[in-house]
Amino acid sequence: MRLDLAYDGTEFAGWAVQPGQRTVQGVLSGALELLLRVPVALTVAGRTDAGVHAAGQVVHADVPAAMWAAIGGSLVRRLAGVLPPDVRVSAVSVAPPGFDARFSALRRRYVYRVTDARWGANPLRRQDTLAWPRALDVPAMAAAAELLLGEHDFAAFCRRRAGATTIRALLAFTVVRDPGGMVRVDVQADAFCHSMVRSLVGALLAVGDGRRPVEWPASLLSRTARADEVTVAPPHGLTLMWVQYPPDAELAARADVTRNIRTLG
Amino acid sequence: MRLDLAYDGTEFAGWAVQPGQRTVQGVLSGALELLLRVPVALTVAGRTDAGVHAAGQVVHADVPAAMWAAIGGSLVRRLAGVLPPDVRVSAVSVAPPGFDARFSALRRRYVYRVTDARWGANPLRRQDTLAWPRALDVPAMAAAAELLLGEHDFAAFCRRRAGATTIRALLAFTVVRDPGGMVRVDVQADAFCHSMVRSLVGALLAVGDGRRPVEWPASLLSRTARADEVTVAPPHGLTLMWVQYPPDAELAARADVTRNIRTLG
Repeated sequence: MRLDLAYDGTEFAGWAVQPGQRTVQGVLSGALELLLRVPVALTVAGRTDAGVHAAGQVVHADVPAAMWAAIGGSLVRRLAGVLPPDVRVSAVSVAPPGFDARFSALRRRYVYRVTDARWGANPLRRQDTLAWPRALDVPAMAAAAELLLGEHDFAAFCRRRAGATTIRALLAFTVVRDPGGMVRVDVQADAFCHSMVRSLVGALLAVGDGRRPVEWPASLLSRTARADEVTVAPPHGLTLMWVQYPPDAELAARADVTRNIRTLG
Repeated sequence: MRLDLAYDGTEFAGWAVQPGQRTVQGVLSGALELLLRVPVALTVAGRTDAGVHAAGQVVHADVPAAMWAAIGGSLVRRLAGVLPPDVRVSAVSVAPPGFDARFSALRRRYVYRVTDARWGANPLRRQDTLAWPRALDVPAMAAAAELLLGEHDFAAFCRRRAGATTIRALLAFTVVRDPGGMVRVDVQADAFCHSMVRSLVGALLAVGDGRRPVEWPASLLSRTARADEVTVAPPHGLTLMWVQYPPDAELAARADVTRNIRTLG
């Protein structure tokens, strides 16, 4: 089955189960096991870090067909009654054949919210807005973002994992100031390596501050290892907005391609 | 001086100072007294109840001219450093002559957010969204709201205060469903009596549920006392959006008129 979910990451130690920590995976699998009475292994589209939020996270899990037939139709309502208010499952459906929440995905979209207002963040949005202490030059940030578009080795912006490529295709990367003054960084890629979005935002903030020139973030693309000069932006400004998948007939092929690229690259 | 402020009402026992309670007035006057080193009496445009939020609350206070000259220009930044993150002062300015945050106001606008999604409220907006357990008929709610427009005695929707009129002019009252499914009740009046917005929303929810006909809320306008059948909607869905004032030259006259109406009516 496929689950679509949203969460406020504030009180979670990220997605992935860790002993003794409250995690989204732990809370969600606990709720599913309570309702389904079998262990449920979850595969997630975007393994968000501690403090990062999600509006449109996607998960898949295998459950016995008889069990799905019995409670699939009422699972959204049942989960709403069992889950805490900081995580909500908005939809449950039968996953098409070949669907893999992680490897079938074509692209992910994240938004980072930051305000440079002297008075700080709107109190009702403070859990997903970074309050930045200096004025931000948004056109400079937008220009720096545009220079990063395309397929590159983002090693400078990644926490390296052994045996995994850091080549990614950055498909959209914009920075705009809302009418209310809030600055919104909007980024889409086929996938992101660990800490990549927050490193990209950290590099743009240095440009927005005037501490670095517009060309600086793109100049780091020649690096083959993480750039220590790049500050990782705090997690609470970041939200995973949605995950996009190909048409059903292409799901399995897409998953095969992605698995090969990520492990061999 | 005039202060414009926003707050998340979740952790506040409302606006007004109460012994032993954390209130917005108490926290704000404490911060001002720390910075100004004199007692500061605050007059507020909308005395919000416990749990009610504000995006554009307005306050006035008298401070010595020499003190204003010394730190007026840096007060927004200083307050940002002293106030907790759930209350923010977005602007401080010299109030024009005759300005009274409460009595000079021409109109107030409140928004109530409610979702009838089976899965509940978006986790990142759960502190200002009511999760309603049944499907809402939004066109019926909008029609019921429209029948309440105009100047009426809203006694049925007010917690009576001795010697005060309950006649109010309802200037706008709309109910719309956002593209994302969220239902937004938007209401403007010259002023609201105690618990009036939440009583109006409670009456509309009974219509939206199908428990009451569209004409029911307006039929209560003939009452001269509070209608016990009206359920007061929970506070956390409600936000004071803004307060509107007349041009500077009319501020004092407006305050005189309002004071007379409210006490004699």
